Amino acid sequence: MAEPLARGTLPAPPAPQGHYVPVVVHGGTAYTAGMTPRVDGRLAVRGLVGADLTVADARAAAGLAASNALAAVAEAVGGLGRVRRCLRMTVYVACRPDFTRHSAVADGASEALRNWLGERGGVARSAVGVASLPSGAPVEVELTVAVTAD
Amino acid sequence: MAEPLARGTLPAPPAPQGHYVPVVVHGGTAYTAGMTPRVDGRLAVRGLVGADLTVADARAAAGLAASNALAAVAEAVGGLGRVRRCLRMTVYVACRPDFTRHSAVADGASEALRNWLGERGGVARSAVGVASLPSGAPVEVELTVAVTAD
Amino acid sequence: MAEPLARGTLPAPPAPQGHYVPVVVHGGTAYTAGMTPRVDGRLAVRGLVGADLTVADARAAAGLAASNALAAVAEAVGGLGRVRRCLRMTVYVACRPDFTRHSAVADGASEALRNWLGERGGVARSAVGVASLPSGAPVEVELTVAVTAD
Repeated sequence: MAEPLARGTLPAPPAPQGHYVPVVVHGGTAYTAGMTPRVDGRLAVRGLVGADLTVADARAAAGLAASNALAAVAEAVGGLGRVRRCLRMTVYVACRPDFTRHSAVADGASEALRNWLGERGGVARSAVGVASLPSGAPVEVELTVAVTAD
Repeated sequence: MAEPLARGTLPAPPAPQGHYVPVVVHGGTAYTAGMTPRVDGRLAVRGLVGADLTVADARAAAGLAASNALAAVAEAVGGLGRVRRCLRMTVYVACRPDFTRHSAVADGASEALRNWLGERGGVARSAVGVASLPSGAPVEVELTVAVTAD
Repeated sequence: MAEPLARGTLPAPPAPQGHYVPVVVHGGTAYTAGMTPRVDGRLAVRGLVGADLTVADARAAAGLAASNALAAVAEAVGGLGRVRRCLRMTVYVACRPDFTRHSAVADGASEALRNWLGERGGVARSAVGVASLPSGAPVEVELTVAVTAD
């Protein structure tokens, strides 16, 4: 997988995969849809973390999903300059019952936020191991962000 | 299963299944509890989606759960007229690790929001496949909504 | 397991298990990270609820995780006196597909909120059964709270 953190510009935000919008902005808060590691509209990687996919690959995928979430926010509010700070991130990891390294996977998403936003990228985070994710994605990232635009 | 979207009035909101409240309203935002597809207090359908339950049935169940969530909001704020817009919806789908059609299931919930609220029903959505849900529910829907009452 | 609800003072909030912060406070709302049942930095209990762990033990663990979440909020805002009210709580329960008693487990977390906060502890709650949680935790609790500090 390509490493998204080294790229100087955010990816184009992925199109929704169903009847929803990528981001809703209201009252100074941006709420993103759950984002998967899509590149140019296609999932970059699929499968269960720790089984079909290594932790290192899942960590990179989490960074990509988080970057997609930020890209959607940036498009909605007019750029990352209007992000005041990250509030909460949920990182869903598709895995088996015996998987325990969710935090290492989710750190890939945390690092993406820090990479793009610096101090504003600090976030309260939940990492959760789930049965499966849409289209077989290994990770899904949902982000809540304080913004200046509305 | 009966199709909830064709009904002209919202269902009665389900009673909580434990020590919590159906909706908290604070600062112009309504937060709902996770809602399952209950009709008259009983789960309309149970089981794992894709195994015990078809995607079509699960999609209808998701619509019912979303309608229950909206009914709870309406009761808390004095009617759907006080809903300014939907912000975020999480749709949990109980399923096996090889299930991939979460978005199709969650679309049933999205359609319910659009049916009851029109443009105000557009929402940032996460669809997630989980191991199991309370009492064997196939889907659970959690909703965050901007409201005018407080 | 020690019963956290009988203690007169909140536990010390657990240190983050990865690259995130325990709580973000913004605009009168505190968002916690997902908290597991840690005591003095170590998980008090591990495993899948209903398999490795009884519902009663999981319920106590959920109370402990919720107390950890409140402790983190208290540390961030200067004490529980600055909590206006609880808004939403998500209780993730690591379990098998045939588990159905999520609400009984989550009630342990709800009771902790009520114990520490009284009426302010009422909350909109989602209980969800997941494949696994970080480091093998049986439960994880995420809390959103209205606060007076900012």
